[in-house]
Amino acid sequence: MKRFVVVGHLASTDPDFSLNDLPGAGRMDELCRCVAASLCLSHGMRRDAGCLLILLGGPKAPKTIRFSGESIRNLSPDERNIAGLIKKALALPCGTVFRESSPGVEVRRGGLAEVLAACGCAVLDEGGNDIRRAGTLPETFLLSDHRHFSEEEQELMQGLPAYSLGPCVLHADMAITVLHNELDRRERGWI
Amino acid sequence: MKRFVVVGHLASTDPDFSLNDLPGAGRMDELCRCVAASLCLSHGMRRDAGCLLILLGGPKAPKTIRFSGESIRNLSPDERNIAGLIKKALALPCGTVFRESSPGVEVRRGGLAEVLAACGCAVLDEGGNDIRRAGTLPETFLLSDHRHFSEEEQELMQGLPAYSLGPCVLHADMAITVLHNELDRRERGWI
Repeated sequence: MKRFVVVGHLASTDPDFSLNDLPGAGRMDELCRCVAASLCLSHGMRRDAGCLLILLGGPKAPKTIRFSGESIRNLSPDERNIAGLIKKALALPCGTVFRESSPGVEVRRGGLAEVLAACGCAVLDEGGNDIRRAGTLPETFLLSDHRHFSEEEQELMQGLPAYSLGPCVLHADMAITVLHNELDRRERGWI
Repeated sequence: MKRFVVVGHLASTDPDFSLNDLPGAGRMDELCRCVAASLCLSHGMRRDAGCLLILLGGPKAPKTIRFSGESIRNLSPDERNIAGLIKKALALPCGTVFRESSPGVEVRRGGLAEVLAACGCAVLDEGGNDIRRAGTLPETFLLSDHRHFSEEEQELMQGLPAYSLGPCVLHADMAITVLHNELDRRERGWI
């Protein structure tokens, strides 16, 4: 199971955000593209992948939404469709345990600390080791949206292995796509 | 100058498509993501890249819209913003010569035959050579949307070099992201 954890520093936890202004909902457009990059292939779904969005915007933050390729149905990769699933998840009352809002989509209260306590992550960082030259890769990768990780987040992340994808700094969704390509190649003996 | 040419087999040439249903406009969402993948970095634009969308849906087809990183301004990567630029281009009367509809965005009548007559392309194909093992790469890559190239298109493409990106078939926008990563690495000596 490959997992991509994306921190949306301003992303709305209020389900009433407008589908007609996803950038205005704390760059929700970028988080939607991250879900598509994590789970969608040209004709089918990546059933062995998941995406966790950590939403830090608004009074109900932090909330975490988990998309599981194993159980999600008919995920169209367009931003508006995925944003609709996020709205539905945010509208569901929840505690600190994941609760399903749609097939393959769950939501809970909690943020990065809770995710890091549950699984070993690697982080993507411009100063990290070149991913193509790295040995065995972990199953979970941590990424940030358009903002850098905060000091508090960086403290939580201390000691995590760091990888770089190339000389250009990419949007989080693009980084997930490049990561998947590297993982696909390793799995299928293309390296 | 790197160029990505994407054939949208059903993509609307009617500017009245709805921004609230981009998949319904002949999978316009995918073409919008291709523009973002071609031109956008995390904090800035790829000034040395361009994206040509070939729209084949509707009575005004074929039309070609060219996005140039060199001259485009403030391109936000969300689908709706890019779709707005496409609508504006489609609303502009044009002939067979490119005409500017917004800074860095131009439109003309014509399709794949005209593009192939003007520049040497490579095509992405599952059966092509592994891109990581390929020698010098061309500057222009040809991709299809969710549909395969038609027989007529394949005839036009005969003899073009073909490359494969990996073992999984990706959406066109994802393929552009992986291509850029390979080109970035080669340019900056990361290989």
